[in-house]
Amino acid sequence: KRTGVPEAVLAEGKTDEDLTAIVRAHVDAVGRVLVTRVSAPQMEKLEAVFPNHVQKSRAQTICVVHSDAYPEPPRTGGTVAIISAGTVDIKVAEEAKMTAEEMGCKTIEIYDVGVAGYHRLILEMEKLKEARPDAIVVAAGREGTLPTVVAGIIDAPVIGLPVSSGYGAGANGEAALLSMLQSCSVISVVNIDAGFVAGAYAARIANRMQAARAGKRGGEHQ
Amino acid sequence: KRTGVPEAVLAEGKTDEDLTAIVRAHVDAVGRVLVTRVSAPQMEKLEAVFPNHVQKSRAQTICVVHSDAYPEPPRTGGTVAIISAGTVDIKVAEEAKMTAEEMGCKTIEIYDVGVAGYHRLILEMEKLKEARPDAIVVAAGREGTLPTVVAGIIDAPVIGLPVSSGYGAGANGEAALLSMLQSCSVISVVNIDAGFVAGAYAARIANRMQAARAGKRGGEHQ
Amino acid sequence: KRTGVPEAVLAEGKTDEDLTAIVRAHVDAVGRVLVTRVSAPQMEKLEAVFPNHVQKSRAQTICVVHSDAYPEPPRTGGTVAIISAGTVDIKVAEEAKMTAEEMGCKTIEIYDVGVAGYHRLILEMEKLKEARPDAIVVAAGREGTLPTVVAGIIDAPVIGLPVSSGYGAGANGEAALLSMLQSCSVISVVNIDAGFVAGAYAARIANRMQAARAGKRGGEHQ
Amino acid sequence: KRTGVPEAVLAEGKTDEDLTAIVRAHVDAVGRVLVTRVSAPQMEKLEAVFPNHVQKSRAQTICVVHSDAYPEPPRTGGTVAIISAGTVDIKVAEEAKMTAEEMGCKTIEIYDVGVAGYHRLILEMEKLKEARPDAIVVAAGREGTLPTVVAGIIDAPVIGLPVSSGYGAGANGEAALLSMLQSCSVISVVNIDAGFVAGAYAARIANRMQAARAGKRGGEHQ
Amino acid sequence: KRTGVPEAVLAEGKTDEDLTAIVRAHVDAVGRVLVTRVSAPQMEKLEAVFPNHVQKSRAQTICVVHSDAYPEPPRTGGTVAIISAGTVDIKVAEEAKMTAEEMGCKTIEIYDVGVAGYHRLILEMEKLKEARPDAIVVAAGREGTLPTVVAGIIDAPVIGLPVSSGYGAGANGEAALLSMLQSCSVISVVNIDAGFVAGAYAARIANRMQAARAGKRGGEHQ
Amino acid sequence: KRTGVPEAVLAEGKTDEDLTAIVRAHVDAVGRVLVTRVSAPQMEKLEAVFPNHVQKSRAQTICVVHSDAYPEPPRTGGTVAIISAGTVDIKVAEEAKMTAEEMGCKTIEIYDVGVAGYHRLILEMEKLKEARPDAIVVAAGREGTLPTVVAGIIDAPVIGLPVSSGYGAGANGEAALLSMLQSCSVISVVNIDAGFVAGAYAARIANRMQAARAGKRGGEHQ
Amino acid sequence: KRTGVPEAVLAEGKTDEDLTAIVRAHVDAVGRVLVTRVSAPQMEKLEAVFPNHVQKSRAQTICVVHSDAYPEPPRTGGTVAIISAGTVDIKVAEEAKMTAEEMGCKTIEIYDVGVAGYHRLILEMEKLKEARPDAIVVAAGREGTLPTVVAGIIDAPVIGLPVSSGYGAGANGEAALLSMLQSCSVISVVNIDAGFVAGAYAARIANRMQAARAGKRGGEHQ
Amino acid sequence: KRTGVPEAVLAEGKTDEDLTAIVRAHVDAVGRVLVTRVSAPQMEKLEAVFPNHVQKSRAQTICVVHSDAYPEPPRTGGTVAIISAGTVDIKVAEEAKMTAEEMGCKTIEIYDVGVAGYHRLILEMEKLKEARPDAIVVAAGREGTLPTVVAGIIDAPVIGLPVSSGYGAGANGEAALLSMLQSCSVISVVNIDAGFVAGAYAARIANRMQAARAGKRGGEHQ
Ligand SMILES: Nc1ncnc2c1ncn2[C@@H]1O[C@H](COP(=O)(O)O)[C@@H](O)[C@H]1O
Ligand SMILES: Nc1ncnc2c1ncn2[C@@H]1O[C@H](COP(=O)(O)O)[C@@H](O)[C@H]1O
Ligand SMILES: Nc1ncnc2c1ncn2[C@@H]1O[C@H](COP(=O)(O)O)[C@@H](O)[C@H]1O
Ligand SMILES: Nc1ncnc2c1ncn2[C@@H]1O[C@H](COP(=O)(O)O)[C@@H](O)[C@H]1O
Ligand SMILES: [Mg+2]
Ligand SMILES: [Mg+2]
Ligand SMILES: [Mg+2]
Ligand SMILES: [Mg+2]
Ligand SMILES: [Mg+2]
Ligand SMILES: [Mg+2]
Ligand SMILES: [Mg+2]
Ligand SMILES: [Mg+2]
Repeated sequence: KRTGVPEAVLAEGKTDEDLTAIVRAHVDAVGRVLVTRVSAPQMEKLEAVFPNHVQKSRAQTICVVHSDAYPEPPRTGGTVAIISAGTVDIKVAEEAKMTAEEMGCKTIEIYDVGVAGYHRLILEMEKLKEARPDAIVVAAGREGTLPTVVAGIIDAPVIGLPVSSGYGAGANGEAALLSMLQSCSVISVVNIDAGFVAGAYAARIANRMQAARAGKRGGEHQ
Repeated sequence: KRTGVPEAVLAEGKTDEDLTAIVRAHVDAVGRVLVTRVSAPQMEKLEAVFPNHVQKSRAQTICVVHSDAYPEPPRTGGTVAIISAGTVDIKVAEEAKMTAEEMGCKTIEIYDVGVAGYHRLILEMEKLKEARPDAIVVAAGREGTLPTVVAGIIDAPVIGLPVSSGYGAGANGEAALLSMLQSCSVISVVNIDAGFVAGAYAARIANRMQAARAGKRGGEHQ
Repeated sequence: KRTGVPEAVLAEGKTDEDLTAIVRAHVDAVGRVLVTRVSAPQMEKLEAVFPNHVQKSRAQTICVVHSDAYPEPPRTGGTVAIISAGTVDIKVAEEAKMTAEEMGCKTIEIYDVGVAGYHRLILEMEKLKEARPDAIVVAAGREGTLPTVVAGIIDAPVIGLPVSSGYGAGANGEAALLSMLQSCSVISVVNIDAGFVAGAYAARIANRMQAARAGKRGGEHQ
Repeated sequence: KRTGVPEAVLAEGKTDEDLTAIVRAHVDAVGRVLVTRVSAPQMEKLEAVFPNHVQKSRAQTICVVHSDAYPEPPRTGGTVAIISAGTVDIKVAEEAKMTAEEMGCKTIEIYDVGVAGYHRLILEMEKLKEARPDAIVVAAGREGTLPTVVAGIIDAPVIGLPVSSGYGAGANGEAALLSMLQSCSVISVVNIDAGFVAGAYAARIANRMQAARAGKRGGEHQ
Repeated sequence: KRTGVPEAVLAEGKTDEDLTAIVRAHVDAVGRVLVTRVSAPQMEKLEAVFPNHVQKSRAQTICVVHSDAYPEPPRTGGTVAIISAGTVDIKVAEEAKMTAEEMGCKTIEIYDVGVAGYHRLILEMEKLKEARPDAIVVAAGREGTLPTVVAGIIDAPVIGLPVSSGYGAGANGEAALLSMLQSCSVISVVNIDAGFVAGAYAARIANRMQAARAGKRGGEHQ
Repeated sequence: KRTGVPEAVLAEGKTDEDLTAIVRAHVDAVGRVLVTRVSAPQMEKLEAVFPNHVQKSRAQTICVVHSDAYPEPPRTGGTVAIISAGTVDIKVAEEAKMTAEEMGCKTIEIYDVGVAGYHRLILEMEKLKEARPDAIVVAAGREGTLPTVVAGIIDAPVIGLPVSSGYGAGANGEAALLSMLQSCSVISVVNIDAGFVAGAYAARIANRMQAARAGKRGGEHQ
Repeated sequence: KRTGVPEAVLAEGKTDEDLTAIVRAHVDAVGRVLVTRVSAPQMEKLEAVFPNHVQKSRAQTICVVHSDAYPEPPRTGGTVAIISAGTVDIKVAEEAKMTAEEMGCKTIEIYDVGVAGYHRLILEMEKLKEARPDAIVVAAGREGTLPTVVAGIIDAPVIGLPVSSGYGAGANGEAALLSMLQSCSVISVVNIDAGFVAGAYAARIANRMQAARAGKRGGEHQ
Repeated sequence: KRTGVPEAVLAEGKTDEDLTAIVRAHVDAVGRVLVTRVSAPQMEKLEAVFPNHVQKSRAQTICVVHSDAYPEPPRTGGTVAIISAGTVDIKVAEEAKMTAEEMGCKTIEIYDVGVAGYHRLILEMEKLKEARPDAIVVAAGREGTLPTVVAGIIDAPVIGLPVSSGYGAGANGEAALLSMLQSCSVISVVNIDAGFVAGAYAARIANRMQAARAGKRGGEHQ
């Protein structure tokens, strides 16, 4: 039952007091809690208040705080791939990744393929097919093309994750979101920067796939 | 291999000549073709040109044209539920349904539950859980709440399908789309009125679930 | 006559000098003044300048400054309920609440019901019906569903109060406002974050209801 | 119990067959049904199908269809005023008026006061005060000022009803809606052209006021 | 010839070095220069660099820097009225006023009339008619009604000057600009916060009126 | 007193019956009425109902209907220039022109100067200076540059009149309106296609100029 | 000198009389004229009025009308490629093509490559490299990816031409335009559906390239 | 081969560590790297880390970092002109210029011509014609007219570069972008503030022109 959508706290806009109180409540209640959109001072505070109990992603803005009883996320056997193109997209991609892992999935991370470098992109996609992901999150900013291309090559359900980047008209993820909604490929979309939603949605699919493979009745509510 | 995304033709904006030519080409090549956003005169034309080979949905704006060799869509064993609330949403919901069926899925249709009638909604959702759908398309116009509520009750992946309806600010599906993107539940979204994409996405998930249940390696490209 | 729309000062964007001068003028003239959208340094300043004469709401961004002659708001007998779902909505809900109290109303505060937790929501609404509020302010951010649901369950006039929250498309209360304007329920709406207007509008209705109950001719201008 | 929000059918976009079927179902079930946003051919059809059972408003786009058993709306004793400025606003104002009457209210109609003709406006408002309306719907297009002005003069709750009119920037009711949301007066707002919602909201307040005056417990759900 | 549109420097976004260099160049070349949208540190800098040669408006964000040769603006005999309603509008109104004075006009300042306080507004307008202004700038934020009302009462050309204020939908002057563009009165409009343009436009009209009164051929280019 | 803003009827969206009734009422009351945005069938109807009493502009969408007593507009001596660049702008320019003439002004029409043909533009502007217009209306669609250029060359007050034309982003006059609001020249603006407002505003200035030249006290209300 | 930007008439919104008059004037003056955005009835009219002198593109909405003296466009030696993906984009692509040919260029037309079919796309691009186009117009609707991909493969300047297609959010070319503006490739953009501008811009580059190859001084104004 | 689009790093939003690491990697790999949108502290950091190897543009926000092996950009013989009107546009113009120089082009800088000062503008354009630029970048903020005017006078391909400036409606380059897209001249456009793209696009054209002049086969991919 730990593989349902994990407890998650949106740090942005919370005072240090509120944030640590809410985090502590969740840790006490369920053992582990995901904290997203954490500022640098907030992260410092969390590490001071919960020493040795904060697991940060490479992007220093996402973490899990855990109790002694739950030092590890569960393992389910579902597999989620996370793809992004640019440095600026990694922060959002990492949020999706950490969420999927927190829901028990194995993740495959491909952070450096762009629409410009076709040969490499196609090569990577061929390798990815072999890894047989259950669902794929594709984070993309600027003009947001990557999910369309990936869904044209590989058959697993693709979740388009628009990233707020760029400047000028269509900046802040607007062009990316609209591109994905207008995509000629069959993809679904989450809101701009919504790495948490994308990761949880992908993991939900992956965990149900794994249950089906395992012959378990899938799809019940946890 | 017939269970991949089906051939589909967007009738809107095509001349009668272009439309029938493209439809015939697809029918000849692959046996069956989905035609979406068909006007009343276009539908008449199609029925005249392909007598006894046009299968219409209840909404008179979607149909499949087929050859003698393929009188039926395939059957896969995947299950997709299609939920909508208002009369005006049915046309778009039907497009999703016909697409999912064309991809071999069994569909469950619940077209009359609204956020207002809670008791009935919750009852229907309890029944739906028992039917264990692999994926759920929820079509909703006006303020677009229904996908959020459904995803809060049932565990299968929910695809929010905003419907262009209403008048005034936020009309034409804008409020519905934004609501779904801002949803507190874990859902993914397709574009306004994109019943075809929603149905194909749901069926893709369902068919992969079925393959997993059947012990087949899932997720390869057709 | 103190139950009309209270004097209110919008602190945002004012210099400390302007703010304290305007507040003092109002306190001297009418005894009590509501101050809204107060920053932390502004609040400190107010407390320093008017020691023991500043009544803060739980949200540290709203307060009443009063003279010795008017240490208490009036009491009318009207009843206003204030409902919100998320922590982030409380600040705006508190502005509505303090305004309604400043206009003499009793307030009922329900700050922790969400659309996700149906059973609890419906329970709370049944209790609220028993309390017979004269008007209900429902603050909601993100996708802004709560007012629609509340107005479907309970008969008192509902004022939808969109709250600026979330990120991505439809953020800053835009999705919430559009949802409320497109609502299938019969509700009215105020601007995003306009807790003051929502509270004053609800209190106006409540005080007129109370006057009607008391057999007094209602609706005259104060 | 007939004074709750009336059955209403939005004719716009419905086929003649669907429209008459839905109307008949409502008439059979509850005796009377409001039909809104009716086109000229739809109205002709309704009058042909339900001869002598269609009550049209002055604006030929709204009507009530009724059974022999319910030839009249109920009478409650609540009073709703409907104010508008321009010819173009009358259609929407009439929708509010017919809805309020259908909910049992007496209505006061003031359709010819504009912000330009102050002296007359103020005179009319003084007369209106004497009539003591329980709620006031103010329909206004173009720059949408009238609700702000009315709410500055008279104390009953004002519902701003933006009307889609004008051309150029801010046309189709956008300027009117934004003006009302930014109003310096304490008013609430409904969506552009939402005469049905405005009328029902006003009548809900008026009927509860009347219940309070009559010493009845008010505000329960019908 | 000094009564043409004055040299003006937009301080916003300029470095201290650039700003003082450009100001000095203008002062040296033409004797006086208007500096608009000046931040507090920029103003300090200007006063340090040009001691006793900076004339500030009441709003501390606009000033004229002058040479010893031109300690005073010219006098033409044209008359411009500047009207605003709220404290927040004064900064922008002052920019219009200082610009008109820099172009030689006498200005009449009415900073405290609002649409709410009709009796006073009408009184002030009657007095203003007696003063016979050649042009009137009306600054208004929020819902931007005041220019419409003024132009309904008094015959001189009215320039609507939308002010960025308020919060929520239509904030930052958007509702005010749209209202003025949709106005039922005959007014013209400048951009949001464009006090400089409004003042210069009004002064241009006033100075040509004065030339006509003086029997001088008007309208030639300076 | 006939030189104040003329009676004007917006034909758009009115039924034939309403239109002719309103026109007749105005003609009876004040002798002449301007009718704007008239469709071809409406114009035919007007000419049938008021034979020999309809004066059409070259653009067949604007006319004056008059009584036998007022076969001519008044003559004041004010002068308004109307400038436009493209064929598509003429319809709107004509509305401004007919309005100014209806208010007694002499008009100067320059309908064929564009920003592309500089030499001709500058030549025409030199000639226009000699004609000494009191105010200049400049109609411009697409990118809306012309008012900026004209105001840089000639000193009379320029009213920018954006015209809805073009396709793609910024179409329907949006680019033109924004350009004019952002103009580096000192101009004022009216709404898109608002030829009536532009013409009336220009004529108001011109008639006051003429009054000043004639030594009459100017600017009083009619 | 015939290779400069050709005379072009925008048929849309013109009456038959105006259209044929303007076309005739151009034909008489310069021998050939391009007519764009022509409706079916307008095209019939043109062919009736100028029998045997109308050259239509495959898309029946663009044509050249010519005199007997100029039965052919000039030949320059510049080469322009026109690429598009979908049937719906061809109409706009044809406008670019006919414009470039009218300016004397040889055109290469590739109308059936999409981002989905990579292998074929890359193959076609390799062939196109061999053809050495001087400039490339890439028309793309929906999510507008194609120009980004083409510019990543081939070195000639790419002009992105967004096409109004699709439905829902980002429809009518909005997503395509924003995508192109946010492109990671180095491309330039014209407005939505602006095939004429794209074709003329490409031909201008191509003709100057050809002049450079021919050792002629390039870049002078015709 | 060094004349292809140069390596470029967008500094905005990068940490000092990331920025210097990426810059160092590029310098090591290819000898020179362009760094754009650099903040003042970032520039200081770069100069400290790469002493004597940072070449700044006049606008202190763009630079090239180079290795000892590549102290100079290449020289090709292509010529790019960069035109802007206001001080505020120079920063963006400089980005285009430095990019074009980094690609080997000679640049001609004209930073002080505005649409207002016609005589000077036309003079400068006549001089520019003599210099025979291969491509012209025109940066313009506010209402963005300059590219339209330049393209009307001179024949080389014009790239419109909108600059984010101004305040109020259409600010931040929106009016400038829309103006350029709606331009009556034949120009192409890049995104707001995209000096890098404009410069690279212009240099690409110029280098291909030079190759054509030199008799080299042009247009191959580097
Ligand atoms: N209703 C629809 N919504 C979105 N895409 C569609 C729809 N119907 C067909 N399509 C897709 O649109 C693409 C182009 O269709 P067409 O313009 O008919 O060549 C096809 O690949 C279809 O898969
Ligand atoms: N003009 C209207 N504006 C808004 N809601 C309406 C209007 N007319 C009817 N309704 C409501 O719209 C809902 C759906 O209407 P229908 O599509 O006819 O089933 C009903 O519950 C009515 O209460
Ligand atoms: N507040 C203002 N609003 C609009 N334009 C202004 C303002 N202040 C100065 N200007 C004009 O902006 C132009 C460019 O200013 P600058 O950037 O200082 O060279 C000058 O011609 C001024 O006339
Ligand atoms: N100012 C700029 N505007 C647009 N693109 C840029 C700019 N500077 C660098 N780039 C491009 O942006 C891409 C991503 O840059 P980076 O985020 O540094 O990896 C690179 O391929 C650059 O070519
Ligand atoms: Mg991308
Ligand atoms: Mg809904
Ligand atoms: Mg909510
Ligand atoms: Mg109004
Ligand atoms: Mg105001
Ligand atoms: Mg123009
Ligand atoms: Mg595309
Ligand atoms: Mg400019």
